[in-house]
Amino acid sequence: MHKLLFSLLSIVSLFFHGGEARQLEVPLPNACHFSQINSLGPAHAIKFEAGQMEVWDHTSPELRCAGVTVARITLQANSIFLPSFFSSPALAYVVQGEGVMGTIASGCPETYEEIGGGDSGRRFEDMHQKLENFRRGDVFALVAGVSQWWYNRGNSDVVIVIVLDVTNRENQLDQVPRMFQIAGSRTQEEEQPLTWPTGNNAFSGFDPNIIAEAFKIDIETAKELQNQKDNRGNIVRAKGPLHFVISPPRQRQQDHGNVNGIEETYCTARIHENIDDPERSDFFSTRAGRISTLNSHNLPVLRSVRLNAVRGVLYSGGMVLPQWTANANTVLYATGGQARIQVVDDNGQSVFNEQVTQGQLLVVPQGFAVVKTAGETGFEWISFRTNDNAYMNTLSGETSYLRAVPLDVIKAAYVVTEEDANRIKFSQQETMLAMTQASSS
Amino acid sequence: MHKLLFSLLSIVSLFFHGGEARQLEVPLPNACHFSQINSLGPAHAIKFEAGQMEVWDHTSPELRCAGVTVARITLQANSIFLPSFFSSPALAYVVQGEGVMGTIASGCPETYEEIGGGDSGRRFEDMHQKLENFRRGDVFALVAGVSQWWYNRGNSDVVIVIVLDVTNRENQLDQVPRMFQIAGSRTQEEEQPLTWPTGNNAFSGFDPNIIAEAFKIDIETAKELQNQKDNRGNIVRAKGPLHFVISPPRQRQQDHGNVNGIEETYCTARIHENIDDPERSDFFSTRAGRISTLNSHNLPVLRSVRLNAVRGVLYSGGMVLPQWTANANTVLYATGGQARIQVVDDNGQSVFNEQVTQGQLLVVPQGFAVVKTAGETGFEWISFRTNDNAYMNTLSGETSYLRAVPLDVIKAAYVVTEEDANRIKFSQQETMLAMTQASSS
Amino acid sequence: MHKLLFSLLSIVSLFFHGGEARQLEVPLPNACHFSQINSLGPAHAIKFEAGQMEVWDHTSPELRCAGVTVARITLQANSIFLPSFFSSPALAYVVQGEGVMGTIASGCPETYEEIGGGDSGRRFEDMHQKLENFRRGDVFALVAGVSQWWYNRGNSDVVIVIVLDVTNRENQLDQVPRMFQIAGSRTQEEEQPLTWPTGNNAFSGFDPNIIAEAFKIDIETAKELQNQKDNRGNIVRAKGPLHFVISPPRQRQQDHGNVNGIEETYCTARIHENIDDPERSDFFSTRAGRISTLNSHNLPVLRSVRLNAVRGVLYSGGMVLPQWTANANTVLYATGGQARIQVVDDNGQSVFNEQVTQGQLLVVPQGFAVVKTAGETGFEWISFRTNDNAYMNTLSGETSYLRAVPLDVIKAAYVVTEEDANRIKFSQQETMLAMTQASSS
Repeated sequence: MHKLLFSLLSIVSLFFHGGEARQLEVPLPNACHFSQINSLGPAHAIKFEAGQMEVWDHTSPELRCAGVTVARITLQANSIFLPSFFSSPALAYVVQGEGVMGTIASGCPETYEEIGGGDSGRRFEDMHQKLENFRRGDVFALVAGVSQWWYNRGNSDVVIVIVLDVTNRENQLDQVPRMFQIAGSRTQEEEQPLTWPTGNNAFSGFDPNIIAEAFKIDIETAKELQNQKDNRGNIVRAKGPLHFVISPPRQRQQDHGNVNGIEETYCTARIHENIDDPERSDFFSTRAGRISTLNSHNLPVLRSVRLNAVRGVLYSGGMVLPQWTANANTVLYATGGQARIQVVDDNGQSVFNEQVTQGQLLVVPQGFAVVKTAGETGFEWISFRTNDNAYMNTLSGETSYLRAVPLDVIKAAYVVTEEDANRIKFSQQETMLAMTQASSS
Repeated sequence: MHKLLFSLLSIVSLFFHGGEARQLEVPLPNACHFSQINSLGPAHAIKFEAGQMEVWDHTSPELRCAGVTVARITLQANSIFLPSFFSSPALAYVVQGEGVMGTIASGCPETYEEIGGGDSGRRFEDMHQKLENFRRGDVFALVAGVSQWWYNRGNSDVVIVIVLDVTNRENQLDQVPRMFQIAGSRTQEEEQPLTWPTGNNAFSGFDPNIIAEAFKIDIETAKELQNQKDNRGNIVRAKGPLHFVISPPRQRQQDHGNVNGIEETYCTARIHENIDDPERSDFFSTRAGRISTLNSHNLPVLRSVRLNAVRGVLYSGGMVLPQWTANANTVLYATGGQARIQVVDDNGQSVFNEQVTQGQLLVVPQGFAVVKTAGETGFEWISFRTNDNAYMNTLSGETSYLRAVPLDVIKAAYVVTEEDANRIKFSQQETMLAMTQASSS
Repeated sequence: MHKLLFSLLSIVSLFFHGGEARQLEVPLPNACHFSQINSLGPAHAIKFEAGQMEVWDHTSPELRCAGVTVARITLQANSIFLPSFFSSPALAYVVQGEGVMGTIASGCPETYEEIGGGDSGRRFEDMHQKLENFRRGDVFALVAGVSQWWYNRGNSDVVIVIVLDVTNRENQLDQVPRMFQIAGSRTQEEEQPLTWPTGNNAFSGFDPNIIAEAFKIDIETAKELQNQKDNRGNIVRAKGPLHFVISPPRQRQQDHGNVNGIEETYCTARIHENIDDPERSDFFSTRAGRISTLNSHNLPVLRSVRLNAVRGVLYSGGMVLPQWTANANTVLYATGGQARIQVVDDNGQSVFNEQVTQGQLLVVPQGFAVVKTAGETGFEWISFRTNDNAYMNTLSGETSYLRAVPLDVIKAAYVVTEEDANRIKFSQQETMLAMTQASSS
């Protein structure tokens, strides 16, 4: 239906404003009727000096239903993803690589750092806000309107997948994804993408005189802040390797926290956790695989972000028992291997039954039942869910729906004998992960 | 206006996709302009083997404004409403009958039960999650994505009215009502309803081999779970009478609660309360009637469900003084008798002034003033309100608006003498319920 | 785009319902793409007996993006803005004048008051809910569905600006602003405004007999409550001057609080605070000006209202350093003087760069960067923000973004030398307010 309305409005759009550059943004709510769900790859790549940003099509039915938008950024060695922020809360997952990440919130305490050398050779103190090392497996909570920058200090690419919850209450703009750059510039690509990110940095929109006044610098330096002659985009090569001192922040002298409205606890709050470590798994099977959950119980900042994440690993022949998420949409990103995934909608119709391989994205709407079976090389994935305490119900196994129902109900429901009802109810003794028979035999 | 857009899009729909089976779902927000509000009966009935499910038209202006959807299920004696869930939080009210209700949440503790007899005659232990007796007057809170089943153990029909809050944040799909069946099947009705519920169960969408693997059962039994050859629908006759042991749950051995994201307190939380008992009334008049409120103060789980309920009884000649609900829409369902109800909108226009009789539904939007006067046989109703602590303001009587305003303001506002202002302010000394003069004389 | 859809639907509207009186209300979500933002004056003024109510066009792109609606009410000396409420939470700012304000919530305790004189000359007791003195600089939190009345007891006009958060969850109607009058009447204006407020009072929609029953008064007095022959509108002259005793409320005898769903703390909660007092400033500069913030830390009732406010004063030559609000839209109302304001969007494009003068309104969407420079006579304003703890990030100065970023990142980002990077980072030592160089020299 939304496709229909889309077609209609596209036609109307052409008629009234045929030459308009801006993409038509039809304000549809989550429309979650599917005859088929498609797994999705990125729709567009924006090349920067030292990396790229790939964005998924946020107007696809699947992402519209889930109310989210997805991007993947790739930083080459010794490059910086320049400071920028989103109007939506988001989760970022480090798919590969390692580096340093800085988050910027006015009013949070600063760290002093002794610096030697530089262009001038003299020694002096720098100061900046807390930095954090990042590595593969880290999930970062990105608060709406708070900037980050990322530096790749390793020798190989850093790859980060970011899911923005555009329908979150904290995004008070429309449901179009927006990246606000405060450094960086527009690239020189011939064909500008219809969607985000296309921008120049915030300074470029101000009068240089105003910038000079605001910073107490001369006009020429003010113009540098605008990156007007710059076409490197938002990922640039550093004169590196850069070394940052990751030290605990000093006590802040002035308490701007309450005044400024930032959550008192934000400045000192943990904003990331690594969920790749097998020892932190919530479900673990030596043969089948493991599942690790990050929610507001173990990362409290997620309470305000209203998102959570699940990291999963399946070995060859392993399966995740059929289940549904009660109170959230799920965006699954395959980080390795492949799996056959089946998804069933509210009418009992199969809406997805395909292989999902590394780099692909699959949306599983709230309530839709899903089962995953690993391929020969196993399967690894990260799932982002649109609730800070998303709640899973399993259809089979130890804590499943069928365990919860009396035998007499099962017999009446499925027209089976007591023996069959017993088998249905108790044969599968695993909780969440199991081996397929085929692979066991 | 929404009717207009509806017309427009219907026409366009026919033009572009004339033959489409799915109903056009226009993503309108709550459109609450009415020249007239209509009381509503169910729009469609789906017959099942041992009962039926009637659904109201969720595209009606009234239900769209309130952002809710309503269904009424009728279970014949000794029948089961099979396990299913909604993507929206809901309240269910037991209009008549009694039975046993089971709610299913993965990770909640189970109850052991000794069972004798059955098909095989042997004795063994069953285990399942907590069951609760239900009876007329019970309100149940239904959490999004959590399944229920209901068994009628009495000799007469059980009737349950369910109000789904489709615009609640916990429903992350679109605003189309959806029932997810995990048992049961599609019925063989010639004409499938355009709307819900039309589905097969979740298992029917999976490959039988996958089900066999997931349950460790053979393919034939897996196919039974799909109810493929079944056309009994979602209410089936039991080989009964069934007897369930309602016992307190055992301590759960493994704590999946936090991992799974379910509220720690949910498993042990009360999810229902009976509000028919005259002794729990909040407002009571021996002659006029009584009113009983259920909100998150007396049923804390309503805090997450964000709904509340009011049960009312008026005797002949009784009236509920004019009032408005400050922060919620109200969906009134008449359970008995009849009343003349008047509703006034934000422009001081009468938008409803009619008799409401048993089985009818009336939407009163937030802020709209309403007054109820019982007919000769009295009036009984249940009101569902879209806020866990909906707040009522009365226009006359003891705690009313006019009591709160100084006499000088009343004199200026209504151009009355001090004597009249005094009478307006103090004559009515009842708080919420009063007798009409006509009936008193 | 929304303009486009608007045009389309307007045309369709004319075609299908050409003569319809009701304005077309297209349910657009916040559409925040702007080639240009306009400052806004009121679109329509409704004259009452002793004052007027001016309303901004809630369908303007700017107010739609912010999800708010704005009104300005002017009360002549010795007049009353009669009791009425909104379905949306709101903040009211007293721009000028002083008086008494009464808020009305069923179930809150009452104050007794001895009254002498009046029409009859006899002495008796009145009772009413708590009254509060108001004066210039007060911000009042208006809870959805709770009525207020305002009395101008001074010699000059009272002017109050009200911002309604129509997209707030507490407004459960559509996004059309609605004022519910419970006294007052429609005015006799020839041309009724297409939008709010146009109404008669709630009583006028009821059958007079029902009102008589509900109040235990005679039909004639009941008709007075309907203000049928009244065309004074919602602001009327009092037989004044009126004197109200502002005394602490007595203990309430009956606890209707929980039953009624009103927050237990509401009745005793402070609902206003004066933010004009220079001593309560959060940022203060003897030369540049001052800024004072009201949020849920210092006025807890804002937590449920989900709005906050900032009062600002700039002296000639003062500027507010460039900044963005992380998690809220801002609605700025100029109360005095003038300033040049620049606003930059997510693409680094200037969308506003003009003088804003007394009485004008400017919307600054979430994340958009803004800088203000006072004109020769200085500038005073009040900003309403759509979050109870809106969080500001500054681009320059003591606690700014650039302070938070290591020098190496600044060098790479803006392609500057270490000396320039140092200057960019440390030259501006003010936090939020600074003097422009031009004015200093």
